[in-house]
Amino acid sequence: MISKQQQKYIQSLHNKKYRTEYGQFLVEGEKGISELLHSDYQIIQIYITEEFAQKLPTHKNLMVAPVTQIESVSTYKSNASGIAVVQQKRFEVPENFQGRILILDGLRDPGNLGTIIRLADWYGIEHLICSEDTVEFYNPKVISSTMGSFTRVKPYYLDIHSFMEKYPHPILGADLEGQNVHKWDFPKNMALVIGSESHGISAETERQLTDKVNIPRIGKAESLNAAMATGIILDNMFREI
Amino acid sequence: MISKQQQKYIQSLHNKKYRTEYGQFLVEGEKGISELLHSDYQIIQIYITEEFAQKLPTHKNLMVAPVTQIESVSTYKSNASGIAVVQQKRFEVPENFQGRILILDGLRDPGNLGTIIRLADWYGIEHLICSEDTVEFYNPKVISSTMGSFTRVKPYYLDIHSFMEKYPHPILGADLEGQNVHKWDFPKNMALVIGSESHGISAETERQLTDKVNIPRIGKAESLNAAMATGIILDNMFREI
Repeated sequence: MISKQQQKYIQSLHNKKYRTEYGQFLVEGEKGISELLHSDYQIIQIYITEEFAQKLPTHKNLMVAPVTQIESVSTYKSNASGIAVVQQKRFEVPENFQGRILILDGLRDPGNLGTIIRLADWYGIEHLICSEDTVEFYNPKVISSTMGSFTRVKPYYLDIHSFMEKYPHPILGADLEGQNVHKWDFPKNMALVIGSESHGISAETERQLTDKVNIPRIGKAESLNAAMATGIILDNMFREI
Repeated sequence: MISKQQQKYIQSLHNKKYRTEYGQFLVEGEKGISELLHSDYQIIQIYITEEFAQKLPTHKNLMVAPVTQIESVSTYKSNASGIAVVQQKRFEVPENFQGRILILDGLRDPGNLGTIIRLADWYGIEHLICSEDTVEFYNPKVISSTMGSFTRVKPYYLDIHSFMEKYPHPILGADLEGQNVHKWDFPKNMALVIGSESHGISAETERQLTDKVNIPRIGKAESLNAAMATGIILDNMFREI
């Protein structure tokens, strides 16, 4: 059973205001909860259905609850698995970023951010530099569309322009006028900038790019979406031949 | 002005039942309407705002209407550009499919189908074979997420198993156990099968594949979504080096 007070608390975490105030967030659905249990995120409480409980290892803060109760506090329309209240993490910005990182310039769509986190995890990219107007990492729609990958990627919300000014390695952006991504030689240390869905990379950010690539087009679509372009560029970045 | 009767008619086209009965569908938003006007789709009526009208060529069935009226009949939460009622097309199945085609096996998410149509258009793929349980091509969410690419891609809803049985060229599917997509030599004539979001490629379809490829993973995400995997495979399919 989820008490009335707990229900109210969980529902408050649907809103960014309270997520920020309490420093906690929600993880919902089978995949997210399974990955959460294998991560070092601090779990405050998990409410799951009897059926799903049988598939999971035990956890001291795990409690079985009826589906109807879980659905009444979930942000999903239907949720037959469970919901967890989890402590947010704040990651300290390292002095040097080694390897390849992503810089998000004003990404607004939660589904796109989630997809990019999942991609970063697929390609083993650990660090995600986010402009302050990028959608919140702990938004429930973001968390849900990462399919558990949120546990392995670290976001840093900061002023990306000051960051890029000091960043010592190449900064790459996608641009229709850029060089063919298939022929580009990706350095070991570098940042890839991803623009917003509606406006692309901002003018200020564009001036800070050191290099531009484009994805060759055969047909007539005017563009690809931000997450799709990121996926295709990452596949080129990490290919060995 | 949109008459009461017209409003009712447009609203009926939010539902698949009436889209099928009347053989018409809706196109909404700036990008979709601009591309529509450059296509050979038969436009029954377009209602647009005064402001958007100034950016468009004239059309005999174009009518200016107030934003509030347009929003009241739109499937979008906000729509400050316009909405068009358009005649659906039925494409005759060619005797032979030359070149590269896509086969969709039970794709259910309208956003994913829209993204795949946009990708097909980006890579110049004209033919989309859809299993009968694939989400409807003329669904407003599909149309909207194609960003106008629906005008250049042809869907064929049919029994994909009988189709594959007779299809004379290689049939490729994505599979974690498949060969490295970076090393794969894509034939000029071939089909790429895309599985559903939740279940992947069905067992029956899998038996009909002639080849399997996988996208190399460096990190730990369990999978990529269907549209993302498609984009990455297509970029490999059409690369020249």
